[in-house]
Amino acid sequence: MRVVTIPSKGRLELAERPKPKPVDDQVLVRVAAAGLNRGDLWQLAGGYPPPADAPQDIPGMEFAGTVEAIGPAAKRLKVGDRVYGLVGGGAQAEFVAAVEGHCAIVPDGLDLVMAGAVPEAFITAHDALFTSGGLRDGQSILIHAVGSGVGTSALQIGKAKRCKVAGTARSPEKLARAQELGLDTAIEIPREVDAAQLIELMRPVAGSINAVLDLVGGDYLAADVEAAARRGVIVMLSTIGGDLAKVNLRTFMNKRLTLRGTTLRHRPKAEKEEAVSDFARDLGPLFASGALRPVVETVVSLDNMLDAYELLRSDKTFGKVVLKIV
Amino acid sequence: MRVVTIPSKGRLELAERPKPKPVDDQVLVRVAAAGLNRGDLWQLAGGYPPPADAPQDIPGMEFAGTVEAIGPAAKRLKVGDRVYGLVGGGAQAEFVAAVEGHCAIVPDGLDLVMAGAVPEAFITAHDALFTSGGLRDGQSILIHAVGSGVGTSALQIGKAKRCKVAGTARSPEKLARAQELGLDTAIEIPREVDAAQLIELMRPVAGSINAVLDLVGGDYLAADVEAAARRGVIVMLSTIGGDLAKVNLRTFMNKRLTLRGTTLRHRPKAEKEEAVSDFARDLGPLFASGALRPVVETVVSLDNMLDAYELLRSDKTFGKVVLKIV
Repeated sequence: MRVVTIPSKGRLELAERPKPKPVDDQVLVRVAAAGLNRGDLWQLAGGYPPPADAPQDIPGMEFAGTVEAIGPAAKRLKVGDRVYGLVGGGAQAEFVAAVEGHCAIVPDGLDLVMAGAVPEAFITAHDALFTSGGLRDGQSILIHAVGSGVGTSALQIGKAKRCKVAGTARSPEKLARAQELGLDTAIEIPREVDAAQLIELMRPVAGSINAVLDLVGGDYLAADVEAAARRGVIVMLSTIGGDLAKVNLRTFMNKRLTLRGTTLRHRPKAEKEEAVSDFARDLGPLFASGALRPVVETVVSLDNMLDAYELLRSDKTFGKVVLKIV
Repeated sequence: MRVVTIPSKGRLELAERPKPKPVDDQVLVRVAAAGLNRGDLWQLAGGYPPPADAPQDIPGMEFAGTVEAIGPAAKRLKVGDRVYGLVGGGAQAEFVAAVEGHCAIVPDGLDLVMAGAVPEAFITAHDALFTSGGLRDGQSILIHAVGSGVGTSALQIGKAKRCKVAGTARSPEKLARAQELGLDTAIEIPREVDAAQLIELMRPVAGSINAVLDLVGGDYLAADVEAAARRGVIVMLSTIGGDLAKVNLRTFMNKRLTLRGTTLRHRPKAEKEEAVSDFARDLGPLFASGALRPVVETVVSLDNMLDAYELLRSDKTFGKVVLKIV
C-alpha cells in the first residue's frame, strides 16, 4: 500500500509498505481520507513522537474509510461499514489498523472524504468543552484560534448547544468566516502582542466566560484568567504560542478557576474509547441532521501531500486540510 | 458583649458591642473559642474585606460554642447544642450570629475550646482534598506548609484515608512534628529559594502526587507541576509566597493536570453549606473516635488577643492559634 512516511526528521515522502493486519480488537480500514493536524508538523520536526504501539514513521492521527477486515476480538463493526476514528499514527496510508472502540460509524449524509476532517477536531473540541470544561448548554465559551480545525468544531458545537461563543484569530478574514458559522463576539489579535495587551483585548468578554478553549498558550493564559467568569474552566489544548506562561494566582483563586491541560493522542486506550463514544453519541445526530459539518479549507490528493503539509504550515487555512487517499 | 475589633487599618482593640440577634435561618452562638487565621492578618492589613453581610470590623471566620438562641427559620439546631462553624466575620466576640447550615454539631469527646480550631482548617482541607482535588483513598498527597492549620488538618485527613503524604516546611522542627502526625516524606525548604531549586527539591516525589495542596503559591507552582503524577490535581489555597507564578503549560498539558483555585470565605451561602455538611458527615466520626484532632499551638485568652495575633504573624506556630473567649 502507499503511505506518507517520515524517513528522518524533516523529510516527508511517499512510500510502499505492507498492508497492516488487524489484531485483537482492531479493524482494518481502507482509508478514504485523513485529516492533517498540527501534531503531524511537530512529528515531522521530530518533537512529537507517536505512542509506542503506533507506526513510528507513518503520520496521521485520524481517518475516514470503509472497514475491510475485522480482528479476532472486534465485535461491533462489520466489513463494509463506513467509519471514522483515531489512531496513534499511521492514518496517512491506503490502509490503517484501528482499535474498534476508537472508530465510530459515519452518519448517513456525511461524505466519506469530508468525514476524514472530523475525528481529531470534533472529538477534541467535544471532550474539551464537556468532559474537561464541564460546559452546560447555554453557557459562554471563548475559543482562541477559532479558525483552526478544533476552533471551528468547538464553535459549531457551542452554537448547536445554544452557547454564546466568543473567538479570537489573527486575521479579520478568519473571523468573518467564523461569524458565518455563528460566532457572536469576534476578537482580532494583532501580531506582536504581549500579555497586558491580550488582557485589554478581552474587555468585551471580561469576567463572562464559563469555558475557555485555549489552543495558543503562552501569554494567552493571562487573557484566559481575565475573560473567565467566577468558577470558569480554562482548557489548555496546545502551546503553539509558547510553553511558558505567567498566571496571577490570586485572581485565579479568588475567581475559583480551574485550568486543565489535556491531550488526546497519548491517552490510554480505554479513555480514548470513552472520548470517541461520547462524541459519537452526542454529536452523531447533529452530523446526520447537518447541524454540524466539518470545515475544510481544501482536499489534497495523496500525490500532492507535500502541498497539503505546506498549506497547513502556512497558518492561512480556515478549518482543516484533508488528504484524500483513494 | 466584648469583641475584637479593627477600628482602622492596622489597629486591633477590644471593644463593647451590642449582642447580635439571630435573623432568618441564623442561630446565636455563645462563643467558647475562635481560631485565628491568616485571613485575619490580611483583614487587619486592609487587604481582605469580609463579605458584605458580615460584621465589617470584627474579625473571626470560625468559632465553637453553645447555641444560645434560634432564628425564626432555623430548623435543625436547638438551644444548648454544642456547635462549630464558619462565618464571614465577627467570630472573635462573645456572641456570633451564624447561618444554621454553616454550623455542625461538635462530636462528643472533642473539647469545645479545641473545637474552635477545627472549622476553617478542616473544612478547607477536606474540601480541597476531595471536592476540588478529587482525591481517592490511598492516593498520594503533597502538602506545602504542612505545619499550618490547614496543613496539619490535611495531613491527618490524608493519613485517616490511608494516603501517602509528603509535606514541605521551612523548619526542621515543624517537619519533625508533622512526622509525629504520620508525615511519610518530609521536604525542608530553605529560605531564599527559586523555582528551579524548588523543582529540584521535589525529586523524592516527582511525578507521583495525585493531589497537591498549595498554601504558598508563587514559585511553588512550578514545583507542584513537577511533583504531580499524570492527571494530578493542584489545589491553590493561598498565595502567601507570591501572586504571580510561572507555569510550563506543555508539561501541564502532557501530564493532563488540573489546577484549581479555591477560597472558602467568599462562597455563596449554599455552597458553603455544602462544604460544611460534607465535612461534618465525612469527618465527624473521625473526630468522635479521636482519629482526627485539631493541632493547636496555643490557646490565648481574649484579654491577650494582641499576643495571639503577634504569634500568628511570627510564622513560628505549628497548627492553630486559638482565642479563648469565655
